[in-house]
Amino acid sequence: MSTPYAPSTVTVLGLGPMGRSLAAAFLKAGLRTTVWNRTPGRAHELTGQGAAGAATAEEAVAASDLVVVCVVDYDAADSILRGEAVTRALKGRTVVNLTADTPDRARGTADWAAAHGIRYLDGAIMTPAPSIGTPDAVFLHSGPRDLFQEHLPRLEALGGTHSHLGEEIGRAATFDIALLDIFWTAMAGYAHAVAIARAEGVTARELAPFAQGIGAILPPLFAEFAEDADSGTYSGAINPITSAVSTMAHVVAVSESHGIDAGVMRATEGMARRVIGLGHGTDGFIRVAEVLGRH
Amino acid sequence: MSTPYAPSTVTVLGLGPMGRSLAAAFLKAGLRTTVWNRTPGRAHELTGQGAAGAATAEEAVAASDLVVVCVVDYDAADSILRGEAVTRALKGRTVVNLTADTPDRARGTADWAAAHGIRYLDGAIMTPAPSIGTPDAVFLHSGPRDLFQEHLPRLEALGGTHSHLGEEIGRAATFDIALLDIFWTAMAGYAHAVAIARAEGVTARELAPFAQGIGAILPPLFAEFAEDADSGTYSGAINPITSAVSTMAHVVAVSESHGIDAGVMRATEGMARRVIGLGHGTDGFIRVAEVLGRH
Repeated sequence: MSTPYAPSTVTVLGLGPMGRSLAAAFLKAGLRTTVWNRTPGRAHELTGQGAAGAATAEEAVAASDLVVVCVVDYDAADSILRGEAVTRALKGRTVVNLTADTPDRARGTADWAAAHGIRYLDGAIMTPAPSIGTPDAVFLHSGPRDLFQEHLPRLEALGGTHSHLGEEIGRAATFDIALLDIFWTAMAGYAHAVAIARAEGVTARELAPFAQGIGAILPPLFAEFAEDADSGTYSGAINPITSAVSTMAHVVAVSESHGIDAGVMRATEGMARRVIGLGHGTDGFIRVAEVLGRH
Repeated sequence: MSTPYAPSTVTVLGLGPMGRSLAAAFLKAGLRTTVWNRTPGRAHELTGQGAAGAATAEEAVAASDLVVVCVVDYDAADSILRGEAVTRALKGRTVVNLTADTPDRARGTADWAAAHGIRYLDGAIMTPAPSIGTPDAVFLHSGPRDLFQEHLPRLEALGGTHSHLGEEIGRAATFDIALLDIFWTAMAGYAHAVAIARAEGVTARELAPFAQGIGAILPPLFAEFAEDADSGTYSGAINPITSAVSTMAHVVAVSESHGIDAGVMRATEGMARRVIGLGHGTDGFIRVAEVLGRH
């Protein structure tokens, strides 16, 4: 849809910390920005910076051909977008849904959008709200490539990098879920390691430089293990999974000797032992990825 | 103990992949190196390079004032070191035990060594066997500082960095356990993320560059969270733990929708929900470290 005001306008639905950062970045880039939030009172700072505060979601949607949505999850997004008046107002417009949820929810929303003449891109924001508008921000997108290209100039007002991961609409959410899986699992390992260290009289500050060393060796291993996983050739020559499980058992033993819950490492060890039980004890740990997905 | 042959000799007990790498590095540095392994037949390559192959452990121990031990765990180390003839031969000599196990096992071995007139350092090797003899190797040590300083010139034949973490003998094992906790938990997260990605039609190779991006943001967060943990001031302003758990629930949901075991993330989510249940929902995730250690 081409209108006189595009591409200098944008609407932001949802004014949590992330939505407010998005709107502020659009404003700073000189876009005519309309904002709306279900709970009133979140728009004050933005309207003070020149944003137009809409009284209703349909009014907000009507103000721009590009509607960026960032709310807590797809239940919240649906409750806004699928209201009759809003759906009608969205016809012919583009929704860029930066709300985090599962790939299937993204696919469901794309189906709904297609059925109502709404152009739809799904996306995910991989960095915290303060990164928005800076080079550090990381955005993932999926959906029709031409639609992405059409709106990229305005999306670039948000700063950072914008990667189009493919036309299949669930891909941004898939990458988001997989990357957050890595992030939060690693954080769980770090928090647990700090708990063990402190129980043994070592402070988090003492551990941190060495923990950073572990962090630094992960990226090249991720690349190497991706080759193993995709090729199906798992080399455990340097570090067979049988050796990994004896380390894991030590971690569990030390944790539990201090009354520290070892559930995460117990589950990790369980995955590894399952691989060994299936006859792959001389493979490397990443064989777990293949066994986990086996039905 | 000062002998005519020190500091140009060393004995290596245990010739698994790591022990063989240690012995090879000592040999390459020109040290007169004596080797022994419980199961015979592992010394051929090393004796071909000039190592002396000892027929018994006591003979191996008698050959040098510095005895480096690297076997599968402390049960294996004890079964060698605590034999009567070996213990007698070790009197006045220094054992550097690079075997991985728990801090309490290191403390127990130090007590045994002190009771038998054996000088004792505990250590851990944080990098795989091929790193030995290269700048990439990372060794952690604990025990009497003067003893460490005395033997450091020979230990440096192993390459890499040698950090003395303190006189408390359990510290090397504590750091080892804590760092391996981080490493294997992060790897579990990566393997699981690969399984999810593949179930959604994304290859490990496609995911890897973005996974590397996640890996790159971990080290500065480790440092920041160490400050939070040690100071007891947990800032959840940017990313409160209540927001983290909704992400974790998405990961669990997507995993289980594909029949992929989500035990690691379920345990992570459980830790986070325990923190929220204790009234710390607005804190950052690292508050988990404090709650995990609470009795």
